Amino acid sequence: MNKMTQIDINSDVGESFGVYKLGLDAEVIPHITSANIACGFHGGDPGVMRKTIYLAKSHGIEVGAHPGFPDLMGFGRRNMDATLEEIQDYVVYQTGALKAFALSQGVRLQHVKAHGSLYNMAAANHRIMEAIAESVAKMDRELILLVLASSRREPLLEIGRRYGIRIAFEAFADRAYQNDGSLVSRREKGAVIEDHEVVVKRALKMALEGKVIAMDGTEIELKADTLCVHGDNPAAVQMVKRIREGLKAAGVEVTPLKHFV
Amino acid sequence: MNKMTQIDINSDVGESFGVYKLGLDAEVIPHITSANIACGFHGGDPGVMRKTIYLAKSHGIEVGAHPGFPDLMGFGRRNMDATLEEIQDYVVYQTGALKAFALSQGVRLQHVKAHGSLYNMAAANHRIMEAIAESVAKMDRELILLVLASSRREPLLEIGRRYGIRIAFEAFADRAYQNDGSLVSRREKGAVIEDHEVVVKRALKMALEGKVIAMDGTEIELKADTLCVHGDNPAAVQMVKRIREGLKAAGVEVTPLKHFV
Amino acid sequence: MNKMTQIDINSDVGESFGVYKLGLDAEVIPHITSANIACGFHGGDPGVMRKTIYLAKSHGIEVGAHPGFPDLMGFGRRNMDATLEEIQDYVVYQTGALKAFALSQGVRLQHVKAHGSLYNMAAANHRIMEAIAESVAKMDRELILLVLASSRREPLLEIGRRYGIRIAFEAFADRAYQNDGSLVSRREKGAVIEDHEVVVKRALKMALEGKVIAMDGTEIELKADTLCVHGDNPAAVQMVKRIREGLKAAGVEVTPLKHFV
Amino acid sequence: MNKMTQIDINSDVGESFGVYKLGLDAEVIPHITSANIACGFHGGDPGVMRKTIYLAKSHGIEVGAHPGFPDLMGFGRRNMDATLEEIQDYVVYQTGALKAFALSQGVRLQHVKAHGSLYNMAAANHRIMEAIAESVAKMDRELILLVLASSRREPLLEIGRRYGIRIAFEAFADRAYQNDGSLVSRREKGAVIEDHEVVVKRALKMALEGKVIAMDGTEIELKADTLCVHGDNPAAVQMVKRIREGLKAAGVEVTPLKHFV
Repeated sequence: MNKMTQIDINSDVGESFGVYKLGLDAEVIPHITSANIACGFHGGDPGVMRKTIYLAKSHGIEVGAHPGFPDLMGFGRRNMDATLEEIQDYVVYQTGALKAFALSQGVRLQHVKAHGSLYNMAAANHRIMEAIAESVAKMDRELILLVLASSRREPLLEIGRRYGIRIAFEAFADRAYQNDGSLVSRREKGAVIEDHEVVVKRALKMALEGKVIAMDGTEIELKADTLCVHGDNPAAVQMVKRIREGLKAAGVEVTPLKHFV
Repeated sequence: MNKMTQIDINSDVGESFGVYKLGLDAEVIPHITSANIACGFHGGDPGVMRKTIYLAKSHGIEVGAHPGFPDLMGFGRRNMDATLEEIQDYVVYQTGALKAFALSQGVRLQHVKAHGSLYNMAAANHRIMEAIAESVAKMDRELILLVLASSRREPLLEIGRRYGIRIAFEAFADRAYQNDGSLVSRREKGAVIEDHEVVVKRALKMALEGKVIAMDGTEIELKADTLCVHGDNPAAVQMVKRIREGLKAAGVEVTPLKHFV
Repeated sequence: MNKMTQIDINSDVGESFGVYKLGLDAEVIPHITSANIACGFHGGDPGVMRKTIYLAKSHGIEVGAHPGFPDLMGFGRRNMDATLEEIQDYVVYQTGALKAFALSQGVRLQHVKAHGSLYNMAAANHRIMEAIAESVAKMDRELILLVLASSRREPLLEIGRRYGIRIAFEAFADRAYQNDGSLVSRREKGAVIEDHEVVVKRALKMALEGKVIAMDGTEIELKADTLCVHGDNPAAVQMVKRIREGLKAAGVEVTPLKHFV
Repeated sequence: MNKMTQIDINSDVGESFGVYKLGLDAEVIPHITSANIACGFHGGDPGVMRKTIYLAKSHGIEVGAHPGFPDLMGFGRRNMDATLEEIQDYVVYQTGALKAFALSQGVRLQHVKAHGSLYNMAAANHRIMEAIAESVAKMDRELILLVLASSRREPLLEIGRRYGIRIAFEAFADRAYQNDGSLVSRREKGAVIEDHEVVVKRALKMALEGKVIAMDGTEIELKADTLCVHGDNPAAVQMVKRIREGLKAAGVEVTPLKHFV
């Protein structure tokens, strides 16, 4: 008998700040298996972090740190030419802060996923990815590092081996891909797919076959351990629900990263 | 044979921020036994935190978190009417962040000491002290909570017992005391004692007899586990050296809190 | 022939920050005559300030600075024991920043209204009010200072005369008042009146008679130059519309402060 | 009779923040003619801004805004991919804030000079320079925009003409130049010249001939309206004094930009 196909569903949550509310965390969290929680630099604040850990724990899902650049005004979405050392310090600081809220509630962090520009810069520059991996490994080798799935898996897996940590690849069912496995920029038309049924089909193809149809029609390989979903608005939450149901109906087990990566 | 008298010497360090340098950390750290490291809210930044942990580790001294109010512009020295819950969240966030830098270097935090206004507000209001104690206990019951030594020890010890953490009392050899065991406000004349020999004598009296001569000449009880010293300038560092030498010459063992509290 | 009764309607707007949206500015602005625009300390950011000035200008309404404490995490709603000098510096900094955006669009600031805790602290402590008045006067004596209407008008008018600036009193039609003319704390039941018709009646009584029925049933004097309204949600905007219609129907001219204060 | 050669000497000041002191402002200000004052984003705070305006006014020198990126942790020295609109908003916000402190003391701003990465990015990218020029012009066409002197003067002068503002070129007597008129990167050896006599000679050549000897020995044209000097430490202040004396001895009139640009 074959082992059941497994996949994780993750979402960026805990991005509210003070009086400012962002995202339907309470609505999306019941449908995901891993929550990436903002840590106060690009979004999130201490109270929001505590409450988001609580919410995730209440639904029995796994939590991870979602560290970003110290740029609240730009929501961590603007490239900053921070040094590798500064990036490591930012990852350690933010992950440590979140870990303390988790620990205070008897929860252990499962993973780390860089946010926004830091995520994109790391995907484009393996020296940054390596810096992040090293800082994660120094804190706790049980932490899984979430990275953008692409055709170039091997260099990233090699970084994971070098630092003794697990690497998990994430894909976006609602994003168009180039035929080289990279994401089509959001600035281009068709970069974001809004038809729920199409997105569910893509999610299934990713989970079951490890493949995606690129924008030019080519079928390419794209093995993903986790699918990133959004809880920005009611329609997005609805899509998450549909994706999860679709995966279940197809016999895919939706379960946290730590159980299979 | 009597057990040797023991005392700890602590100092607030790691308060630089970005290009801004504050305090002679490298000069004062060799002479103290416990370093209270700023955690980014009132002072300190991720890089400074990493380097300060490194410096403390190099000299084999203990480290603790020094969390303050989120008020860099006011250096955490302005009272803010944050709620008890906000205060707990600030303590957890900052302590967790520092702990991650310690952990990354194989160092364990020894203690937590609130900074500036948060320290003063906690000393004046036991509900705040209790909130801090609870948040410390939830993270790690091995952490020692540093509080202002006063005549009213019992309520603070009771808070420690309630949350299962150790309380350490700190005194200031260079500060004048009221006859009720409280500090004379810095705004009053004579609040800060600058004569090194007088300060050394007061430090000895604190360490050996658990007493201090109050401003009005009364000798009062003031049991302290640790003496707080400063590294603001070369004269201050010189005074720390003198205090340590004086204690040693008098047969007092200067050793980190964790060994005797 | 009697001069028509005149009143201004003001609202706090421009409080969004970065990706974070707050308040239905575009919905409420068409119905008010004076907009208090956040200046970046408790809310607002440079882009939001520019866009809010633009929005106000498009609707031909007056704009004023709404400076608060440097506490984005607490939205300027936590008392901070800043010095009078610090408060003056914060008012100058923020008002100047907003003025530059106004100037860049050919708009002149009409007024200054302190935000949140700074507003409340100034209402409770005339030394703070005086510090604010002085800093406003030093920048531009044409600026009107908005303060909480109360039974104690004279000391505030005297502050205005001393610094050569106009003082405008604001009242809240949807808030309960004590019989001494002070606001009932939001923590108390009945502090905020939600019935639109009751609020409209109170607004009319304030505008036409300069009076309000206090919580204990006493009718007290409360002369107001401007009514503060909110644009937090669609119901709030609806209430603003009703208040304005009610005032118009009763023959009250709703017009910016500068035309009659 | 020939018109006397004129030059301005400028320095970045007012970069302290809260308890953090940076630069010997009180020492360097008496020797310069134009002060570039930090505006709170990369350095400076409201109180520091007020005091620095006061200091400059006391010495009768001109003041200008020194706006930077919102990156206190990196002192505005890290490139950020802010949009042109964001950059304009940052310039307006900061310049307006400083202008209010100037106005409150009866002082008028003379100029605007971008700080750190914003300055460098504008020098390298004329679309950014143009964005800054436009925002300055919208506030006040009397404001002079300070830019890096280079061989490519014309495009910058053209930007000034387009927006109706004056452009002033600044050179660095203590920095090595490439033979294309650009600065040698600080990372390269010999980029900063420390010999005071050499620096004074270069300053004279810049002022009297509008030329500099590039690193490769070539003499190149480099017309400067102002020389940038530093007040970081006593030796730097000493160099400023020497430069000013040298210029005076050579018959160069050291006078604020506004008198001759």
